[in-house]
Amino acid sequence: MVNPNTAARPEDTVLPECHIRETGVLPEHLTAFRRQGVLALRGLLDPVELEAVQEAAGSLIDDAWRTRSMTDTIWTQEPDHPDAAPVRIEYVVDKSPVIARLAGHPLLLRVMEALVGPNLIPTWDSMVFKTTAGAPRLSWHRDGEMYADAVGVTGAGRVIDVGVYLDPAPEDNCVWCIPQSNYWDDDRITATAERLNASEWDTTGAIPAVMRPGDVLLHNILTLHGAPAVQGKQRRVVYFEYRPAEVEWQLGPHVPEYVGRKQQVLRSCVEQRAAAHEHRDEEPFDYCPAEPFRHWVGRPDLTTLRFPHEENWRW
Amino acid sequence: MVNPNTAARPEDTVLPECHIRETGVLPEHLTAFRRQGVLALRGLLDPVELEAVQEAAGSLIDDAWRTRSMTDTIWTQEPDHPDAAPVRIEYVVDKSPVIARLAGHPLLLRVMEALVGPNLIPTWDSMVFKTTAGAPRLSWHRDGEMYADAVGVTGAGRVIDVGVYLDPAPEDNCVWCIPQSNYWDDDRITATAERLNASEWDTTGAIPAVMRPGDVLLHNILTLHGAPAVQGKQRRVVYFEYRPAEVEWQLGPHVPEYVGRKQQVLRSCVEQRAAAHEHRDEEPFDYCPAEPFRHWVGRPDLTTLRFPHEENWRW
Repeated sequence: MVNPNTAARPEDTVLPECHIRETGVLPEHLTAFRRQGVLALRGLLDPVELEAVQEAAGSLIDDAWRTRSMTDTIWTQEPDHPDAAPVRIEYVVDKSPVIARLAGHPLLLRVMEALVGPNLIPTWDSMVFKTTAGAPRLSWHRDGEMYADAVGVTGAGRVIDVGVYLDPAPEDNCVWCIPQSNYWDDDRITATAERLNASEWDTTGAIPAVMRPGDVLLHNILTLHGAPAVQGKQRRVVYFEYRPAEVEWQLGPHVPEYVGRKQQVLRSCVEQRAAAHEHRDEEPFDYCPAEPFRHWVGRPDLTTLRFPHEENWRW
Repeated sequence: MVNPNTAARPEDTVLPECHIRETGVLPEHLTAFRRQGVLALRGLLDPVELEAVQEAAGSLIDDAWRTRSMTDTIWTQEPDHPDAAPVRIEYVVDKSPVIARLAGHPLLLRVMEALVGPNLIPTWDSMVFKTTAGAPRLSWHRDGEMYADAVGVTGAGRVIDVGVYLDPAPEDNCVWCIPQSNYWDDDRITATAERLNASEWDTTGAIPAVMRPGDVLLHNILTLHGAPAVQGKQRRVVYFEYRPAEVEWQLGPHVPEYVGRKQQVLRSCVEQRAAAHEHRDEEPFDYCPAEPFRHWVGRPDLTTLRFPHEENWRW
């Protein structure tokens, strides 16, 4: 007999989604994200912005191929190897004004404010991509668990990874995730990841996060997720991560001064977007953290949007 | 010159409020609560329910006067002293079916779910009241700070005290609070509370939470608040506190088993309300925590709604 209290509810086995340009974000979307550990924002980018970001992303990838640089760039092998392919570029907000303006997107930032809280700060920004050279399986993992009592601190989802999709991600080339695993304890995470990773591609208990270009996928960093190996398909995703300043300030992982630096970065992105002709009809995001967390005040003007993690670790 | 980055914004000096029966709860209400540490839900109780709760509250207070019992009841002095007055009664959900049904209020619980998260559990339930015998000043304080790194864990407001007002609370007889103090560090809280408490009633930096009967005041337990001494006025408030089960489970203050017990209490309150003729037109609250936090499953049926804190402390 199925116990109605423990049986999966139908809504537990589909990806929760918000058609943000039609409904805006509603409390039920926020709760669905907090419960399931994942949420799709459908059609966040309009076609014009999508095309601009695709072009900017393409240029960054072309630069990587051309220069074979390892600066801020991760390759599948040493870049001078003939089979080497670039798969990730860090600090893309600093490298592309178009991506800096994307990071100031008001609809996205309002969702982040509602989930992360008013003191949200941007932490990681990068682009992860699969070129037609192919990419190996992304094994099942949590993104990070650097906090003691991580489920208590952020099981409900205050540290959020945002993937902005520039290419289609169909079932055979998308992230899969296990809903509600954001609340699992360490033992259950470890055991499940080991079991699923023991074969080439096992999706037991998982759901696919099928995405179209211009869609955005939010996932709690504690949600267990992975992706199958793929060949011959391009898939580019710009990732932004956000954390609450009060968590970063007390618990790290970056030094306290990182809060003010990244608040300056966020404010710069919002200002760059507000000043851009193509976004003139938008109401800019109003970044308004509580008074104890306005750490940009009194800081010298920015000369870069790139604050390397390894120069800002607390430990 | 006023620095626009640090100057108080106009919205920082008024109590944020949500006219919940007109607009429902919106993301901007949630963010206002997270930023300011306080939020008024105007007119949550309809007149019929308000009258029923007022009557139930009156009966409990009459019982206290009549029996002079100290069980679950706090008095200003030893109860046999002629000037003694009762000021607080604990575990009111267990003592009154009307208050148990109030604890199942769907609009209230939906706001709590949106703020505390899907795994919300009820912790404290009590009634605090000022009889016409008068009440002393409530000195400036935080309700609790039992977590290490309390601001990181719950500065944004996941541990919430809910006051359901049964009588008017005008400026000279209401709670005052300091917006955004939920994000202050310990030193600033201590210094400010000491300075304000040095004179009989100092409201520097504070705003009044003026309430009408049927209104509900939410405050973050970390928000600094106090209230002036009052004479000759009755003011009864039913308090419910909520916490995320994942926080209680990992960080306390109660034992892990407390989570399942209080989930049973919440489910009972929702069921009692759903079964009551006077609430037949309401859609009941759908309590749906994530699968790892459905701890009521397999527990014996409840024989009480009273789970004393001192029998459930972890430390």
